[in-house]
Amino acid sequence: MLTAELMKRLDAKEQRIIDIRRYLHEHPELSFEEEETAAYIEEFYKEVPVDSVETNVGGHRGIVATIKGGRPGKTIAIRADFDALPIQEETDLPFASKKEGVMHACGHDGHTAYMLILAETVAELKDQLAGTVKVIHQPAEEMPPGGAIGMIQAGVLEGVDAVFGIHVMSTMKTGNIFYRSGNTQTGRARFKLLVQGKGGHGSSPHMANDAIVAASSFVMNCQTIISRRMNPFDTAVVTIGSFDGKGQFNVIKDAVTLEGDVRTMSEESRELVEEEVRQFAKGLDASFGVETTLEYANDYPVLHNDPEATERVREALLQAAIPEVDAVTEAAPQPPSEDFAYYLQEKPGCFFYVGAKPEGKQWYPHHHPKFEIDEKSLLISAKAMAAVVGAYCGKGES
Amino acid sequence: MLTAELMKRLDAKEQRIIDIRRYLHEHPELSFEEEETAAYIEEFYKEVPVDSVETNVGGHRGIVATIKGGRPGKTIAIRADFDALPIQEETDLPFASKKEGVMHACGHDGHTAYMLILAETVAELKDQLAGTVKVIHQPAEEMPPGGAIGMIQAGVLEGVDAVFGIHVMSTMKTGNIFYRSGNTQTGRARFKLLVQGKGGHGSSPHMANDAIVAASSFVMNCQTIISRRMNPFDTAVVTIGSFDGKGQFNVIKDAVTLEGDVRTMSEESRELVEEEVRQFAKGLDASFGVETTLEYANDYPVLHNDPEATERVREALLQAAIPEVDAVTEAAPQPPSEDFAYYLQEKPGCFFYVGAKPEGKQWYPHHHPKFEIDEKSLLISAKAMAAVVGAYCGKGES
Amino acid sequence: MLTAELMKRLDAKEQRIIDIRRYLHEHPELSFEEEETAAYIEEFYKEVPVDSVETNVGGHRGIVATIKGGRPGKTIAIRADFDALPIQEETDLPFASKKEGVMHACGHDGHTAYMLILAETVAELKDQLAGTVKVIHQPAEEMPPGGAIGMIQAGVLEGVDAVFGIHVMSTMKTGNIFYRSGNTQTGRARFKLLVQGKGGHGSSPHMANDAIVAASSFVMNCQTIISRRMNPFDTAVVTIGSFDGKGQFNVIKDAVTLEGDVRTMSEESRELVEEEVRQFAKGLDASFGVETTLEYANDYPVLHNDPEATERVREALLQAAIPEVDAVTEAAPQPPSEDFAYYLQEKPGCFFYVGAKPEGKQWYPHHHPKFEIDEKSLLISAKAMAAVVGAYCGKGES
Amino acid sequence: MLTAELMKRLDAKEQRIIDIRRYLHEHPELSFEEEETAAYIEEFYKEVPVDSVETNVGGHRGIVATIKGGRPGKTIAIRADFDALPIQEETDLPFASKKEGVMHACGHDGHTAYMLILAETVAELKDQLAGTVKVIHQPAEEMPPGGAIGMIQAGVLEGVDAVFGIHVMSTMKTGNIFYRSGNTQTGRARFKLLVQGKGGHGSSPHMANDAIVAASSFVMNCQTIISRRMNPFDTAVVTIGSFDGKGQFNVIKDAVTLEGDVRTMSEESRELVEEEVRQFAKGLDASFGVETTLEYANDYPVLHNDPEATERVREALLQAAIPEVDAVTEAAPQPPSEDFAYYLQEKPGCFFYVGAKPEGKQWYPHHHPKFEIDEKSLLISAKAMAAVVGAYCGKGES
Repeated sequence: MLTAELMKRLDAKEQRIIDIRRYLHEHPELSFEEEETAAYIEEFYKEVPVDSVETNVGGHRGIVATIKGGRPGKTIAIRADFDALPIQEETDLPFASKKEGVMHACGHDGHTAYMLILAETVAELKDQLAGTVKVIHQPAEEMPPGGAIGMIQAGVLEGVDAVFGIHVMSTMKTGNIFYRSGNTQTGRARFKLLVQGKGGHGSSPHMANDAIVAASSFVMNCQTIISRRMNPFDTAVVTIGSFDGKGQFNVIKDAVTLEGDVRTMSEESRELVEEEVRQFAKGLDASFGVETTLEYANDYPVLHNDPEATERVREALLQAAIPEVDAVTEAAPQPPSEDFAYYLQEKPGCFFYVGAKPEGKQWYPHHHPKFEIDEKSLLISAKAMAAVVGAYCGKGES
Repeated sequence: MLTAELMKRLDAKEQRIIDIRRYLHEHPELSFEEEETAAYIEEFYKEVPVDSVETNVGGHRGIVATIKGGRPGKTIAIRADFDALPIQEETDLPFASKKEGVMHACGHDGHTAYMLILAETVAELKDQLAGTVKVIHQPAEEMPPGGAIGMIQAGVLEGVDAVFGIHVMSTMKTGNIFYRSGNTQTGRARFKLLVQGKGGHGSSPHMANDAIVAASSFVMNCQTIISRRMNPFDTAVVTIGSFDGKGQFNVIKDAVTLEGDVRTMSEESRELVEEEVRQFAKGLDASFGVETTLEYANDYPVLHNDPEATERVREALLQAAIPEVDAVTEAAPQPPSEDFAYYLQEKPGCFFYVGAKPEGKQWYPHHHPKFEIDEKSLLISAKAMAAVVGAYCGKGES
Repeated sequence: MLTAELMKRLDAKEQRIIDIRRYLHEHPELSFEEEETAAYIEEFYKEVPVDSVETNVGGHRGIVATIKGGRPGKTIAIRADFDALPIQEETDLPFASKKEGVMHACGHDGHTAYMLILAETVAELKDQLAGTVKVIHQPAEEMPPGGAIGMIQAGVLEGVDAVFGIHVMSTMKTGNIFYRSGNTQTGRARFKLLVQGKGGHGSSPHMANDAIVAASSFVMNCQTIISRRMNPFDTAVVTIGSFDGKGQFNVIKDAVTLEGDVRTMSEESRELVEEEVRQFAKGLDASFGVETTLEYANDYPVLHNDPEATERVREALLQAAIPEVDAVTEAAPQPPSEDFAYYLQEKPGCFFYVGAKPEGKQWYPHHHPKFEIDEKSLLISAKAMAAVVGAYCGKGES
Repeated sequence: MLTAELMKRLDAKEQRIIDIRRYLHEHPELSFEEEETAAYIEEFYKEVPVDSVETNVGGHRGIVATIKGGRPGKTIAIRADFDALPIQEETDLPFASKKEGVMHACGHDGHTAYMLILAETVAELKDQLAGTVKVIHQPAEEMPPGGAIGMIQAGVLEGVDAVFGIHVMSTMKTGNIFYRSGNTQTGRARFKLLVQGKGGHGSSPHMANDAIVAASSFVMNCQTIISRRMNPFDTAVVTIGSFDGKGQFNVIKDAVTLEGDVRTMSEESRELVEEEVRQFAKGLDASFGVETTLEYANDYPVLHNDPEATERVREALLQAAIPEVDAVTEAAPQPPSEDFAYYLQEKPGCFFYVGAKPEGKQWYPHHHPKFEIDEKSLLISAKAMAAVVGAYCGKGES
């Protein structure tokens, strides 16, 4: 059985996964600037019996390694992202970031580490493989528009039957794997609204048009998008995170810029919220005689796990009976957004979660300067994805 | 001297003024329904040597008595109104209203009483009169559109050089006369705004369009008309006095009707407020997707006393040295509106105030069920207007 | 097998179910006033070999019929409600309501009809019954505080292991049965807020305290309960359905009464919303100097179906293979509230839905004057509940 | 006649006034930092036969020159301010500011220039003076708390019967003098409100407390101070000129700082507005659970010209028949605030305006980088104040 053999070999390579992850952790790079990391990955594949390695894919040094099995079968894509964040690391780890202000604070170092060793291992066993495995190393997950779009436009999903990804989670218990069918992570949009009024002396409001008052009315009105427009059984958030209206106390403010963040769990509500924000902006012009300029940009879509593929992942994980895994559990929907959603717009597949909460010490959420993962999660990730490979491309395994 | 002779004769007729006023007080009639009162006035003039009496003037039984002097001179109009209010009287007066729910609670009974006796007296002395006095008895001051418009359209101001009126004031000390030059009483407008949303079950806001929320936003926005649009040195008020949104707690309200009252002290601000209310109504449609229907009606204009005429009134009052008058004082601007303003849009003139606060007892504001006036104010009114007549139409008196 | 035998006998009694339902439909009674209906039910049981019938249970003529099986086993309660609504029926049914303004527009007539015949049938087969079945005929589901509370206080759930109920649904396809595990129907609260300001003349806001403005601010603030306080993955609705602020356009409104409806899907959010509404009311006093009086009453709780019991119902329905049933499907959460939730606070159990949408004609939602059900749903309901009885009290059936 | 003699001599000194003004214009100094200007003034008085010169008065180099007349009479104070503004001059004047970023953009250079020459001239004629003239050279009018407070605390008004000041006005026609009785320039207050909520991820409002929403509600509520709390016939402005809420679009803002400006025309409304702002701040805590910190500081009071003193100024100006003056006219109330108001809280007096609009060229408002005055206004100012000196301290002149 392919899965069993993969897992046996992975067991023997755990330390190598950890070493790679620690090396990457020391050398983080920001989204769209991942030169050294890409070079490291390319270098790795020079020794690995994959069938092809494409580099500079998608415009930003994405890498795709293809492993063709000895027998016909499905083609699946498995993806790991490799960018880091503009955060100053505050951990005491011996392998803490060596780059000022840049940190792997989301676990993408771990994703890349497990994926490289898994790719190597699958390549070693490609005779037993029925079908093809495409390993996608994707840059720039953290920064819109994200690296996934470029990879897809470059054709990485052509001929692919299904696509899979894993995120290690410092917030979820190590030893647990979590899945969710259907809409799983929020889609996201952002907007910037310039409210142009007319400045003037604080004592003479009739000669001016107060942009702060108009913008405050907009903020209040926007609350009704969630409270009155949304289906209460659906999920959406509109946050105005920035109200840039600093000025002099005694001068009527001529212009204000608002910036907002929108999260939705369905494409319907994504459209609804955009329409409403646009409407309230127009309404502001009509009501207050200001001139608004709205930039509204959708970025990552709602991440939708295909129910059938998710069920197959769940079954594969259960059948694999990974010794380090205590439970395979349904996850709650996840507020953050993730550019893996773009792959899932194209192909069925599943993005799932591997618990990585450090044991016996304080844990921190993703994007925190003290973020850490339990490195046991790395071998678990490799084995979990091996189980998926086995299920789709093992001989009669699922 | 005409003024002195008028005052002497009026002194002798004080009781008749009071008697007429008490009779009228017992027999009040609502605006546009003043049948008996008009008949009473017409009857009075049958015995008076005026030159002509026109009846049924202005479409609603207005009466104009004209007194032509023996010598050439100015033509002035002096006006008294004669309607009452839909109020149930609660005084203990022996001559309290005999009509259920109708009361002279604004002093128009007194206006008519002093004016009849003054007219009679001027008529008696018409040989000494230089010029012409038109005595206007006007119905329906209390109810928009008001009786003044009809009188003017009927031509009562044709050939008139100046127009004058008095209001007795229960809020001002008896023995004082108050005048104000320029904009003196507010102009008024009213509006009715239907906010049509879409009803629905309280648990399903996304299937409905909540008219209460939209209307509440309108109420908040309207505050900025006064706070941000008006010149702070000008005066305006926007009151939304009615928010008719009663419904079932668990049903989203489909439609709400607001009713508002607007007061301004200049035609500029009257236009400004109307424009802004219209703009916020349109803004509501644009913002909330409701359908608003706005009825906006200006009624009484700002009452503007001509500065020159006002100064002449002030001087005439001072020169007349009316023994019952302790002071002739500048008044503060007056919040209520008054349809005498229409006459002053056509001709220069002055509308001024005769103190009528009851002495030694509790006083009540106009339109109160316990409203009373000090009847001393009636003779004072007659003499004050006599002084104006003397100033304009006495021989070389001013 | 008990279930099979029950179903066979029910088949033969379909017309009797329909007849009972039609009789009840012609004779609807309002909540807490169900005299004749209760008498009808009591009369029915006189001929039925149940072990006991308690009447006047719970203070309002609730009825509990107990059927003890020949063998030991579980005790389950099955409940049907029997009140009607204050609605004037507008159907053309030959058995339309004979009572002016009262109508079975929610299907409780059907609930009672199937339940009586099911109770009779179970009683006939009680030798095969392992355990005890308590049949609860509950009045006053439609009107808070609801009949369920009284029944529970009277002890109807004592010794009961699980409790079940069915609602026929004109909105769901006939032939389908729907279930949902966990929180399934909203909990509900209502509130009434008196905002006491101070009246005054429309032209003099500084002498008054405008209750309409304060209340409008409250309406806007309440939107933030949903938009900013609630977990976006949870569900809640706050509707202010009534804004009773009708007044005169030119008089500043002294007091306004708001009435609101609150729906939640968890007890946590129920408490959160109440706390926030109370806070905004206090905040109104603090901000505007008004005096608010808030009456806030929780009524029906969130209806929570026990996952295990729900799974057992699902399995029982599938195993029963009811010929008239095409599908057993997971339902979406349901916005309305239901007082069966009280039973489920006390005991595990499941409230589930039997499709009753009329075929080949226009259908109407519950509480509509033209509401109808497909009478095929009655036999299906009887058989579905029979399957539940069989699963819990059949011999080794589940 | 003292006035006539003063004017004759001033005529001869016009060029010296202009020269002094130009020198000062080239050497502006900021409020509370007027070292050289004070030294210049002190130097000037060394040659002038005043009776005493006090320096370093009021803590900031204020100067008081006292001229005692040959005969007994009233003691009056006449004041000129001498600070400049933090503005980069953009005029083409040959005597433009030599100091980077500092400019006499409000005419205080002119005030000082005319006042020095007037003082010299009065001193020359002190034998004809009945009473005493105290010449107050005050620093720091432009910056709260203003220099006037210190001067008053140092006792400059002790024994003074009346106090007078002039402002040259680039907005008013040269050749005109304007006066106003009663409340003439606004009083001012400023406030800073910190709204402390709780930050959080944009997708999770329930874990945070959005300071931008709370602050927006405050902005909307503050509009009602003007629209509903103020007497519509009084004047007040509340401007929130700064809404410092810049942040990241996808992070809920933890804290916002608002800054506001308050203008009033009466002490009553000053207190009212402060009370209301404080109330809405507390109401924000109560409503939204934020923590607000409010700093509220009154600065310059309403400038109240004593009616009797104003009338005396008006008469003195008319009687003086200054050839360069075309009209002496009532001014509208002035929106800006002025620390001369502090003197008028202590003593009766009048602050009045001398037109200084440049003829035949574009004019600019005060505090504008291109601000200029017509230098003809300087002689007019000197003569106008001479008329006031003559009226109060001439022999039988008024």
